[in-house]
Amino acid sequence: MSGGPVWIKRVGDANIARANVEYTAGFDVAGRAPADERLARHDLQTNAAHLLMLVETNIITVENGMAIASGLLQLREKNEMGESFLRPSCEDIHMSSETVLGELIGSEHAGRLHSARSRNDQVATDMRLWLRDEVAGLAQDIAALAERIADHALKHTTTVCPGFTHGQPAMITTWGHWTMSYLPRLLRDIRALGALLRELKTCPLGAAASYGTSWPIDRVRTTKLLGFKHPTPSGADGIWSRGELELRFAQVAAQFLSHLSGIAQDLILLSSPPRDWIRLASEHVTGSSIMPQKRTPDFAEVTRARAHVAAGIAQSLAGIGIALQSGYNRDTQWTKYLVFDAADNVRGAAELFAQVFDRMEVNAAPMKAACAEGFLNATDVADHLSGKRGVPFRVCYRVIGEVVRECDAQGAIQLSVLNEALTKVGIAQLSAEEWRMLEDPEALLAHRTQAGNPAPTETGNSIALLTREIREEAGTISAARAEWQAAMADTWKQIQQLSG
Amino acid sequence: MSGGPVWIKRVGDANIARANVEYTAGFDVAGRAPADERLARHDLQTNAAHLLMLVETNIITVENGMAIASGLLQLREKNEMGESFLRPSCEDIHMSSETVLGELIGSEHAGRLHSARSRNDQVATDMRLWLRDEVAGLAQDIAALAERIADHALKHTTTVCPGFTHGQPAMITTWGHWTMSYLPRLLRDIRALGALLRELKTCPLGAAASYGTSWPIDRVRTTKLLGFKHPTPSGADGIWSRGELELRFAQVAAQFLSHLSGIAQDLILLSSPPRDWIRLASEHVTGSSIMPQKRTPDFAEVTRARAHVAAGIAQSLAGIGIALQSGYNRDTQWTKYLVFDAADNVRGAAELFAQVFDRMEVNAAPMKAACAEGFLNATDVADHLSGKRGVPFRVCYRVIGEVVRECDAQGAIQLSVLNEALTKVGIAQLSAEEWRMLEDPEALLAHRTQAGNPAPTETGNSIALLTREIREEAGTISAARAEWQAAMADTWKQIQQLSG
Amino acid sequence: MSGGPVWIKRVGDANIARANVEYTAGFDVAGRAPADERLARHDLQTNAAHLLMLVETNIITVENGMAIASGLLQLREKNEMGESFLRPSCEDIHMSSETVLGELIGSEHAGRLHSARSRNDQVATDMRLWLRDEVAGLAQDIAALAERIADHALKHTTTVCPGFTHGQPAMITTWGHWTMSYLPRLLRDIRALGALLRELKTCPLGAAASYGTSWPIDRVRTTKLLGFKHPTPSGADGIWSRGELELRFAQVAAQFLSHLSGIAQDLILLSSPPRDWIRLASEHVTGSSIMPQKRTPDFAEVTRARAHVAAGIAQSLAGIGIALQSGYNRDTQWTKYLVFDAADNVRGAAELFAQVFDRMEVNAAPMKAACAEGFLNATDVADHLSGKRGVPFRVCYRVIGEVVRECDAQGAIQLSVLNEALTKVGIAQLSAEEWRMLEDPEALLAHRTQAGNPAPTETGNSIALLTREIREEAGTISAARAEWQAAMADTWKQIQQLSG
Amino acid sequence: MSGGPVWIKRVGDANIARANVEYTAGFDVAGRAPADERLARHDLQTNAAHLLMLVETNIITVENGMAIASGLLQLREKNEMGESFLRPSCEDIHMSSETVLGELIGSEHAGRLHSARSRNDQVATDMRLWLRDEVAGLAQDIAALAERIADHALKHTTTVCPGFTHGQPAMITTWGHWTMSYLPRLLRDIRALGALLRELKTCPLGAAASYGTSWPIDRVRTTKLLGFKHPTPSGADGIWSRGELELRFAQVAAQFLSHLSGIAQDLILLSSPPRDWIRLASEHVTGSSIMPQKRTPDFAEVTRARAHVAAGIAQSLAGIGIALQSGYNRDTQWTKYLVFDAADNVRGAAELFAQVFDRMEVNAAPMKAACAEGFLNATDVADHLSGKRGVPFRVCYRVIGEVVRECDAQGAIQLSVLNEALTKVGIAQLSAEEWRMLEDPEALLAHRTQAGNPAPTETGNSIALLTREIREEAGTISAARAEWQAAMADTWKQIQQLSG
Repeated sequence: MSGGPVWIKRVGDANIARANVEYTAGFDVAGRAPADERLARHDLQTNAAHLLMLVETNIITVENGMAIASGLLQLREKNEMGESFLRPSCEDIHMSSETVLGELIGSEHAGRLHSARSRNDQVATDMRLWLRDEVAGLAQDIAALAERIADHALKHTTTVCPGFTHGQPAMITTWGHWTMSYLPRLLRDIRALGALLRELKTCPLGAAASYGTSWPIDRVRTTKLLGFKHPTPSGADGIWSRGELELRFAQVAAQFLSHLSGIAQDLILLSSPPRDWIRLASEHVTGSSIMPQKRTPDFAEVTRARAHVAAGIAQSLAGIGIALQSGYNRDTQWTKYLVFDAADNVRGAAELFAQVFDRMEVNAAPMKAACAEGFLNATDVADHLSGKRGVPFRVCYRVIGEVVRECDAQGAIQLSVLNEALTKVGIAQLSAEEWRMLEDPEALLAHRTQAGNPAPTETGNSIALLTREIREEAGTISAARAEWQAAMADTWKQIQQLSG
Repeated sequence: MSGGPVWIKRVGDANIARANVEYTAGFDVAGRAPADERLARHDLQTNAAHLLMLVETNIITVENGMAIASGLLQLREKNEMGESFLRPSCEDIHMSSETVLGELIGSEHAGRLHSARSRNDQVATDMRLWLRDEVAGLAQDIAALAERIADHALKHTTTVCPGFTHGQPAMITTWGHWTMSYLPRLLRDIRALGALLRELKTCPLGAAASYGTSWPIDRVRTTKLLGFKHPTPSGADGIWSRGELELRFAQVAAQFLSHLSGIAQDLILLSSPPRDWIRLASEHVTGSSIMPQKRTPDFAEVTRARAHVAAGIAQSLAGIGIALQSGYNRDTQWTKYLVFDAADNVRGAAELFAQVFDRMEVNAAPMKAACAEGFLNATDVADHLSGKRGVPFRVCYRVIGEVVRECDAQGAIQLSVLNEALTKVGIAQLSAEEWRMLEDPEALLAHRTQAGNPAPTETGNSIALLTREIREEAGTISAARAEWQAAMADTWKQIQQLSG
Repeated sequence: MSGGPVWIKRVGDANIARANVEYTAGFDVAGRAPADERLARHDLQTNAAHLLMLVETNIITVENGMAIASGLLQLREKNEMGESFLRPSCEDIHMSSETVLGELIGSEHAGRLHSARSRNDQVATDMRLWLRDEVAGLAQDIAALAERIADHALKHTTTVCPGFTHGQPAMITTWGHWTMSYLPRLLRDIRALGALLRELKTCPLGAAASYGTSWPIDRVRTTKLLGFKHPTPSGADGIWSRGELELRFAQVAAQFLSHLSGIAQDLILLSSPPRDWIRLASEHVTGSSIMPQKRTPDFAEVTRARAHVAAGIAQSLAGIGIALQSGYNRDTQWTKYLVFDAADNVRGAAELFAQVFDRMEVNAAPMKAACAEGFLNATDVADHLSGKRGVPFRVCYRVIGEVVRECDAQGAIQLSVLNEALTKVGIAQLSAEEWRMLEDPEALLAHRTQAGNPAPTETGNSIALLTREIREEAGTISAARAEWQAAMADTWKQIQQLSG
Repeated sequence: MSGGPVWIKRVGDANIARANVEYTAGFDVAGRAPADERLARHDLQTNAAHLLMLVETNIITVENGMAIASGLLQLREKNEMGESFLRPSCEDIHMSSETVLGELIGSEHAGRLHSARSRNDQVATDMRLWLRDEVAGLAQDIAALAERIADHALKHTTTVCPGFTHGQPAMITTWGHWTMSYLPRLLRDIRALGALLRELKTCPLGAAASYGTSWPIDRVRTTKLLGFKHPTPSGADGIWSRGELELRFAQVAAQFLSHLSGIAQDLILLSSPPRDWIRLASEHVTGSSIMPQKRTPDFAEVTRARAHVAAGIAQSLAGIGIALQSGYNRDTQWTKYLVFDAADNVRGAAELFAQVFDRMEVNAAPMKAACAEGFLNATDVADHLSGKRGVPFRVCYRVIGEVVRECDAQGAIQLSVLNEALTKVGIAQLSAEEWRMLEDPEALLAHRTQAGNPAPTETGNSIALLTREIREEAGTISAARAEWQAAMADTWKQIQQLSG
């Protein structure tokens, strides 16, 4: 007996999507690394910038600087090789790198790197370096998902299906119009990430414990070396606000997962019997250890759970920030774990949903068949009568209401019943031709031609418009990211030069 | 015995601030009006825009239009006079205005106003009209508060006081540097409101129940008449996303109240015995029915509670939005009450805090005296030694640590003890002149001259910088508001003309 | 045109359930009264007990006592007539009653009633009086709902239907077994209310501002007069813990609404097309202003929203209680509004759901028909094979999995395909008789006879067991309530006697 | 340079409390193990009980049973030796043990253990086994903490100090009365855990996927073998309610941490300058890398953060449970991680606070000195006048209010000023003897002799009463735990016998 998941046979042995497995497996068999492990890279970056500035301002000697530079390069190599230098006995990554540096180059050099700073401004800076990467990365992932959804929607601008209200078929629409509605959600997510990125342009380094330092440091210089735009105008705020941008990130991640949870709910409901309007790809469904026939969209259920996990994390972050008196408070250390959890919780979601949209099949036939049931054209009939016969809408509404009641058994408005009712209230009957149009989903949709409404051309226009906006917003974020990456690369070049 | 608050005598009979009383009294003796009462104004606005468009597109006749226009003008007058036309028997404001309109101008006219729309797009539009006003109003209030705090901080750039970490005095700073740190918080709040406003530029009207309408409506026209920029690119999303911008507002309101709660905590701690560094104005403190000597900053305590109320409201809104299947769902009706509660919960807070900062007194003497206790210059001494003697910081740190331990009883570093310790480890002793500088708060601060740090000139620069940014952000919001107000005024002019 | 809801025609003019309308209308046209209005009754009760004790301990004279007693009786009469004596100018109900009392009997008497107490212990006591009533009332309502669900389930122990996992039909069960699963939820709610009631047995009165009083008060006496069991063992805790039992209530209310939200979700999904297994009574569905054919269970959607509202309120209450330093803090005033909102938010829910279960119809035919599709007997077949043929379950599982895959098109296991597959792996084929049993839902269910499983008799036993437990728990609560009501009635008799 | 924490020198090298380090270090350098690792022990237990029942009911043969029993014993030994058998490739602990069992004893035996159950009832049972241990363990820890606080409080029933309201000294009390108020909080926590334990008496095993099984299993037998009291009366509910008792646990953990956060806030405020009324032991404070003089109670700050983390986890759990349709849904898998996080988040807190109370010192002198400032006897003076002179309390209140205002500068009521004021309103002056009593904290406290109030004897009585109640509640829980442990031990004995 193999050790693999027992349901794997059913869903197609080999092609079970890795992304799906990782996304749905949670922490059952996967542990979580120490939090500071993921700060290692950023802490080295902060150290590099701080070092160059210390040498330039003569706070430390060039000799000390050379030694430290060479030590930092060694640590960076370790880090890039995936080798950890976090020492559990050293309390955190900051003390670990100082300690390991001491071992590499001697503590008479290493001991000088912490001059003119505090762990307060150091960790605040590390966290911003980490956070801006995470923000930009998430924005890119969401933009990529949006492209896949836009493609999907564009393919289905003429695939008629019932539109829902209150979880029930209500009016005729298209699957393209339906799924196109997911795009503005993603656009708002990207814009919210962009707005957050704007707050990540300032650099806390140089505030020391909150109250500055008497050393002649150059905050503008370290800011530039780290790819930020300005030093935090209030050094204190840069320390004291720790947890706030973390909260903002958690909120956007929660918003995005909430958006996905609505899409997930649609997919669960429409891919399940008796509807089966959507057929998810085999690699995105899972089986059961006791009911081999199940094709369950676990990823969608997991997404609902993750949305609530995200909301709870945001709540914890919000709570920690309330009524803290000014000054660094240890409470904020916990914001680090929370925001890391928030990032892990959203990771992979965009990519997985992009795959899902790429590979799922739409069963157009049952969708169209469902348009003939449930009086989905009732509003259209009322509008038509009101428009063509000049009767107030409220009057038409009442007539149709009664007709629907009479036709309950048949499940669709019967022309004869309708015409009889119209005659009674003195409205001219509908002709056979009028009725043909009112029974034809495509004909009905062809009239809904205003911006954002489901006439196929209009849906196409909206998709184009939204795609353009999404690309612009995501493009701005990518450009910013490229800029800070270039600045940081340049910093390492200078470290290289300094090391001699 | 008068019926007024029993503590009024203590805090100075007449001048108890109205804003404070209202803010702290909560709902003990004040009820809350029906939710739709506050939508009346906006519903009329939506009706006016819809009407003009209906006439222009010949969906209804000019004759019908004239009658409805005159009816709307009558309702608007009622509304401006503070007269309600909300009818409990009519379920909501939308049906109330249709009903009352019917009574004023006959239902053969009134019944046509609801042509080519649904309550779904109508209420979504009303809510956005309400929300953008609320967003802009809150931004203005926060900007006004920022001005008062900036003035206060500027007055105190040379008022030395202990800066805290972990709720304890830690290093020397100034009260101006401390309070200046409140400004970036407010700037972020305003920017977050600006980002939200960007989402409020699109108009949901014309999406009908979500799936458009066969009537030849003109969405671009109603968009313009209401002062929005574009129709929602996905009509469906404009309906289905109800509650999301409400959540965003609640989150910003919560963030702002969280910011205020931190300020409140500072004020509580610093205005209470034994510190009394701050003396809140009599009109901002309250007494006790049994302990007449108390001067309690109830407003500050209430602010902490309000911050948690806001966070909980945001949580409810977030929860409602998760895993809702597509289409209008009645769940979202509750988002209306929640966001109204969120708005009421934050109302008055900015204004009250502005008053508080305006009128509170700072007791500079005990602040300065406190700078001489608690080893607040320990870091400065260590930095000085490290810098002037060229000893690694970590070494200085350890020496000072031991000196502090020895001087525990005296509560301040003693030069003799220090010099003895320095000699032991082979570091040159401090001269009397060096020591004078290291004991003088102003002298110490004069060295902390980098951006954002507490040297008085630098604090002044930062205040100027932050004030400029706040004005810019708030100015952009004001300009946008002026634009939509002009558009709406113009719409009413056209209604006037239509009415004949 | 009448002002009533426009959808009323559709759902049957007159019989639209009042409870449903009130529950779903929210605050659109209904305002909310001042919070202290609902404390009036309880404040009078506290005053009555305090007064009797003051006279008995000679803290005030009998003459004073007589006057106050007669004043309290007048206020009580007002209160019972629905006449308010809350004065907006008086800040709260406590000062209002003192003021109005002063007008009725002179302030030289009225001014003595506040002797030996503080508003701190007074309001804490009022709140407990209010809360225990609310807790007991909710428990009764839930118990009544449980009776209706138990009746419903008992009627359907033989109504076969698909049981779900992952939102999809999975195995055969009965509707009685399904709905019986709602009972333990309600039992847990009642038990949680009972556990909360246990905390409401202690009386905070007599703690004054937290630190007691030098007056010779008798806490045991007022405790008894109010129907509590013991004075709070720590007077201070009785004041400082304000908000905690409020939070507990909000949590139970949220748990109950969460339970209802799950039931609501079931009802939405099963009463909607294409399933229509459940037909909700006309008075529990609502229509649409534009789509007259809709029968939407708004109450169920509203319940989902209310569950999230409750969770958010609990969150606010939890937040307010965190990290408050000891002593009365004004923050806790907001817990009053929150718990009142929590109580209003849950009010009517149990009664409405009881009506819904009473009047809804179950469509047994489509339920049964659905049992023949979707391989619902796959597990039974695998179990049967494993049991009767002695093959390890995992082997049977794999065989059935392949058979299901082959029979995908037919939607049900085909005996011929199955038998062929069995032969291949060397398992004896199924006889026609065996297969008949495996295709017969009733026959399959007849084997699931263990405690809590869906064999009809077993479901009946479980319903009986659960009903008994629910009655016991609710009975204990009712008995406690009767006891405190008797104690309070007796207190008023003594007030009557004192008044002369 | 050693790698240890850099602040260790300051707080006393060697004795830094391990519990404190672990509690405050968070996840910086510590990772988190896979979730199912901690279920291994419980899964073996469930397997053992299921196996015995399978053999007894002849569902599997004795021969199979013997083989599996011996395999389970081997796995159990591994587990007790701390050796993991969780296989990442096996998806979860359930499949891991089946797989490893197969390797040990052959899959023809191992494959039969999963007969007549599903992973649904298996994991639900595992979780309850884990949860009841956690609940009982937390209750014991809290009870142990309560003992330490009771001892502390008892030592300080005569240690006078100011009592606070609104964060300010308000009236005189004792430190024993203050800290005694922490006990009812802990009692409520233990009671809430007891109420939760009551829900953990039922066993979900035997519900299979929710709908029972046709195998002739014996649910009563497995219930007994696992130390539960009854099978879940609704098998379905036992599966579908997953996450609810997890939420209940998270809520109690959050309540307990909220209680600790209030205590933490007291300790922070009272152990900091300028008060220093409390001196925390060196092993419970931490230093700063830049400010060697700091003695910061990090554990207390961390506790505030943990309280918010707990509240957020509870929120996530609450959210996941809302509006889930009936049947197992994968969403609930996430409740496992959340409740594990909740348990880890509270772990160690009780033990650490017990240490803190054991070792902290109380500085009685400054506490007593503070009683002479801030008009703390104002209420006592007013009460005395009202009682001895027979003047209505409200009148006395007003007089004292004016006197306090006049004596603002002196910071204490001056007898001469008071007597002058009394004369003006016609109240007899206070004698020197009366005044002596009113200025003597001990004398004032001696009058506050009612239940729960701060007269020393009364505080002693309350501590005794509360300690008794706490022991009773905790004792009941311990007894229940002993019972289930015995049942489980007995099960393993039977497995031993079965293995031959």
